[in-house]
Amino acid sequence: MLSKAKIKHIHSLRLGKFRKLHGQFVAEGSINVLDFIGSKLEIVDVFATSEWITRHRKEIRKIGIIEVDARELAKVTALKTPSEVLAIFEIPKPSKIDFEKLGSITLMLEDIRDPGNLGTIIRTADWFGIRQIVCSEETVDCYNPKVVQASMGSLARVGVYYTKLKNLIKQKPAGIPVYGAVMNGKSIWEIEKPERLIVLVGSEAHGISDNLLTLLDERLTIPASSEGGAESLNASIATAIICYEFSK
Amino acid sequence: MLSKAKIKHIHSLRLGKFRKLHGQFVAEGSINVLDFIGSKLEIVDVFATSEWITRHRKEIRKIGIIEVDARELAKVTALKTPSEVLAIFEIPKPSKIDFEKLGSITLMLEDIRDPGNLGTIIRTADWFGIRQIVCSEETVDCYNPKVVQASMGSLARVGVYYTKLKNLIKQKPAGIPVYGAVMNGKSIWEIEKPERLIVLVGSEAHGISDNLLTLLDERLTIPASSEGGAESLNASIATAIICYEFSK
Repeated sequence: MLSKAKIKHIHSLRLGKFRKLHGQFVAEGSINVLDFIGSKLEIVDVFATSEWITRHRKEIRKIGIIEVDARELAKVTALKTPSEVLAIFEIPKPSKIDFEKLGSITLMLEDIRDPGNLGTIIRTADWFGIRQIVCSEETVDCYNPKVVQASMGSLARVGVYYTKLKNLIKQKPAGIPVYGAVMNGKSIWEIEKPERLIVLVGSEAHGISDNLLTLLDERLTIPASSEGGAESLNASIATAIICYEFSK
Repeated sequence: MLSKAKIKHIHSLRLGKFRKLHGQFVAEGSINVLDFIGSKLEIVDVFATSEWITRHRKEIRKIGIIEVDARELAKVTALKTPSEVLAIFEIPKPSKIDFEKLGSITLMLEDIRDPGNLGTIIRTADWFGIRQIVCSEETVDCYNPKVVQASMGSLARVGVYYTKLKNLIKQKPAGIPVYGAVMNGKSIWEIEKPERLIVLVGSEAHGISDNLLTLLDERLTIPASSEGGAESLNASIATAIICYEFSK
């Protein structure tokens, strides 16, 4: 059974200020919830239908699950079609970015505002084995329910950090260049591929700010077709193509 | 001024059945509206603030614009932040797919349900100069307001067709192979790149149906990192990476 207080609590976690206050976030959907259960995160509550519990008995052996019916889940879902499972997790304490642990590619995002874009970038990063994403403080919160949803469980494996990008770029080891995605840079087909690099992607509306443009080691562009008409690529698409090209 | 009847009409066009009934759709946002105005589409109505009209006097010289204020636009917008311009256009009569006009890549989409994904695919196709996208009849309507929004004007330049894909594949000229995006196919890095091809992408939830899998000439996969954890890539991301790789 879902108490009224619990329903209210789950609803409140859609808002950043309550996620901050309680230090918790909500995940929905089987893949998402199972991936978080399998991660190091602290579980607060898991609510699921009896069918889901039966189906996933193996993966959830040691975990207390509160059985609810589909009607109850419909009351708390942030999705159009409620999933059979919803869970609350503790937001992990922010750790410091570890330059030693940076893989071949580190993503850096400046002011990505669309939760679908951030979630998709986290999912894509996970596919290409990228383990750390550094975001400007104005980037959408990665525990926003729409980000969690679009990340499809990958948020359980990819570290997302929020910090002042300018300071971070200045503190990074000298051997790791910063490549920024811009409209009129060097073609990504022709660019040198260092062993380790930071890829910076700017906001959907404004691209990379002047503030950070001056700190780039290289400006790169995904060439459009001469017959192409689009003014730009979606931020998550551009990020994915760059991750793909550099992870070859 | 926006009359009550007009407000009701605009609202109704969010639903597929009314778009079909009236043969019209709504576009919002400056890029979108200007791209459609510049296309061959018939304009029904354009509503804009006086500031927008002043700013775009050049592009809209010959067009009758109905001046409205921001408060009125807020009443009819489908967006979180209303744009300064909203327009109604006639949906063009569906034309037949012209195999002669197929470019180097033709996209074929099976049951893409998410409007953001379809819109992003249209935008990406436009960037890479792809002029025709063929969709299964279960794919989301390309005149859905969220598709129009995510396409960022590219729907004005890319033809989107709805048909039975199986029949179409059987009718296509023999020299154009069909490559399908699957989970365990040949690596896209190693695959032969024909001069002209059809790229088939399946639905978000189920991938390519068995029905069409048997008709593929080649199954291709975007390799994940050995350290990657994501189960799959988002459909619009996979499509973009394939378009990128084949348009080099």
